[in-house]
Amino acid sequence: MPLDAVLDLIAVFVFALTGGIVASRAQLDIVGFLFLGCLTGVGGGTLRDLLLGRAPVFWVASPHYMGVACAAAMLTFFTAHRLESRYNAILWLDALALPVAVAAGVGIARDSGASWPIVLIMGVATGTFGGLMRDVVANEIPLVLRQGDLYVSACLAGALTSVLLLHLLPAHETLSLMSASGVTFLLRAGSLQFGWR
Amino acid sequence: MPLDAVLDLIAVFVFALTGGIVASRAQLDIVGFLFLGCLTGVGGGTLRDLLLGRAPVFWVASPHYMGVACAAAMLTFFTAHRLESRYNAILWLDALALPVAVAAGVGIARDSGASWPIVLIMGVATGTFGGLMRDVVANEIPLVLRQGDLYVSACLAGALTSVLLLHLLPAHETLSLMSASGVTFLLRAGSLQFGWR
Amino acid sequence: MPLDAVLDLIAVFVFALTGGIVASRAQLDIVGFLFLGCLTGVGGGTLRDLLLGRAPVFWVASPHYMGVACAAAMLTFFTAHRLESRYNAILWLDALALPVAVAAGVGIARDSGASWPIVLIMGVATGTFGGLMRDVVANEIPLVLRQGDLYVSACLAGALTSVLLLHLLPAHETLSLMSASGVTFLLRAGSLQFGWR
Repeated sequence: MPLDAVLDLIAVFVFALTGGIVASRAQLDIVGFLFLGCLTGVGGGTLRDLLLGRAPVFWVASPHYMGVACAAAMLTFFTAHRLESRYNAILWLDALALPVAVAAGVGIARDSGASWPIVLIMGVATGTFGGLMRDVVANEIPLVLRQGDLYVSACLAGALTSVLLLHLLPAHETLSLMSASGVTFLLRAGSLQFGWR
Repeated sequence: MPLDAVLDLIAVFVFALTGGIVASRAQLDIVGFLFLGCLTGVGGGTLRDLLLGRAPVFWVASPHYMGVACAAAMLTFFTAHRLESRYNAILWLDALALPVAVAAGVGIARDSGASWPIVLIMGVATGTFGGLMRDVVANEIPLVLRQGDLYVSACLAGALTSVLLLHLLPAHETLSLMSASGVTFLLRAGSLQFGWR
Repeated sequence: MPLDAVLDLIAVFVFALTGGIVASRAQLDIVGFLFLGCLTGVGGGTLRDLLLGRAPVFWVASPHYMGVACAAAMLTFFTAHRLESRYNAILWLDALALPVAVAAGVGIARDSGASWPIVLIMGVATGTFGGLMRDVVANEIPLVLRQGDLYVSACLAGALTSVLLLHLLPAHETLSLMSASGVTFLLRAGSLQFGWR
C-alpha cells in the first residue's frame, strides 16, 4: 500500500471520528452519525480527486475507505456521550487529522503530475474541506473561519514546507510528506494551546 | 432505452415538479421556476455521475433530460398556484420521485461495476441530493433533516433490498430495481401517512 | 492562446477582484482575500469543467489562472479600503466579469461538442456560479437572487444570442462570442443603471 493511501486512510478515520462527535453534540440518530462521519472523512479527498480529474474518486475505487469511516462513526455512537468535553475532543482530533490529510493531498497531487501551486492548493483543500462541510451541515461555526486561529494558514505552511523540501532533496518524498504533517500540526496545536496567530 | 435511463427520466420529471412547486411557494419568477426545477431534477444524478467518474454527466450527454425538467417546471408555473396545499403536494411528489431515483442510482452504479457498498451509497445519494439542494437554495427546512421522519433510512433500506435480491437472484436485475423502489416508497409513505419511524 | 482561454483569463481576474473587495468588506485577513479571490475567480469555470467532464479542470491544467486570481486578490488587499463605495465597485466589476465569463462558458462548451441547450446552461453556469459562491461564503445577499434585477436572465439572453448567431453565421465564432458578451453586459448594466427588469 503506498504511503499516500495510508495517509488518506488515517485521515479518513480521524476526520470521521470528529464527524461522529459533532453528530453526538447535535443529538442525531445512528444514520446521522454515519452520514456526518462519512461526509467529514472523505469530503476533502473527494474535492481533491474531482478537481484533479482522478475518476472515480478514491473511495469509489477502494470501498474500504467507507468501511473505515463507518467504523469510526459507530465507535463514536457508542462512546462520544461519555467524553468530558466533546468540543475539545473535536478540536484536538481535527488538529490531528488536518496534518495527515494535508500530506495525503500533497502526495497525491504530486503523483498526478500537478505543478507546485496546484500541489499547495490540493494540500489545503484535502485538509480543510471535510471539516468545513461537517460544520456547515451541522450548523456549527466552521473551525476554518474562527477568528484569530491558525487553520488554513497552518495547512498552507505545511504544504509549502513539503514543496520546498522536495525541491531541495528530490529523493526524499517520505521526509517531505512527514514535514508537511509536522509543520501543520505544530502550528495548529500551538494555535489551540498557546493562542498563536 | 435501458431501464436505468427510463428511471432517471421519470425521477428527473417528478423531482422537477417538486422544484417548481417550491419556486411557487417562494413566489419566484419564471427563471426561478426553471432554475429550481432543473436543479432538483438533475441534482442527485449529477452528484452520482461526478463521484463515479461518468464524464460528462448524464444530462450533458443526453440533453433531453433538461427538456423534461424544463417542461415540468413550466407545468408547475401555470398550475401550482391552484393546488390546495402546495406543501402536501411537495411531500407526496417527493415521496414518489425518491424511490425511482434510488433505483436509478442503484442500477447505474451497478452497471458501472461498483462494489456493493458504493452501490448503496449511490442509491441514497441519487435519491436525496436533488431534494436537499432544492430545500437549501429555497431556504425551506430540508426534508432530509426533518426529525422523526424516515427519509435517508427509507432510501438505504430500498438500496439494501436491491443489493441482497441481486445477490440471491443474479438473473433478475429488473425485479431487484423494482424492489428497491417498492421498499423505499412503502417506508417513506408509511412515515408520511402513519408516522412510522 | 485560443480566444476561449483569453476570455477565461479575463473573467478570472475581474471576478477575483470582486472576491477581494467582498473580503475587504468582511474585514478578512490576507488568507481570506486569497481564498475569496480564487474561489470567485475560478468557481464558475470549475463547475462547467466538472459537468462537461473536462479533467482536470482548467486551472489545474494551467496554473497561471491561479496566479492571476492571487494577483487580483493582492491588488484589492492593498487598495480596496480606499474605494469610496466598495459595494458599487462590486456591483460594476461583477457586471463586467459576468459577460466575459458567459462568453467563455459558451465557447468552451461548444468546443467540447455539447448540444445547444447544454451550451446555454454552461454559459449561465460559468457566469453566475463564482459570484454565487462568493456571496454565500461571505454571507452577503447573492446578487443572483436580488429581487427585480436582471442577472440570470441577462446571462441567458447573451448565451441565446450567441447560439442563434452561430446557427445563422456558422463561420463567425468570434462575432458570436462577442455578441454574447455585449448582450449580457447591456442588459445587466441597464438593470443596474436604469432599473430595467
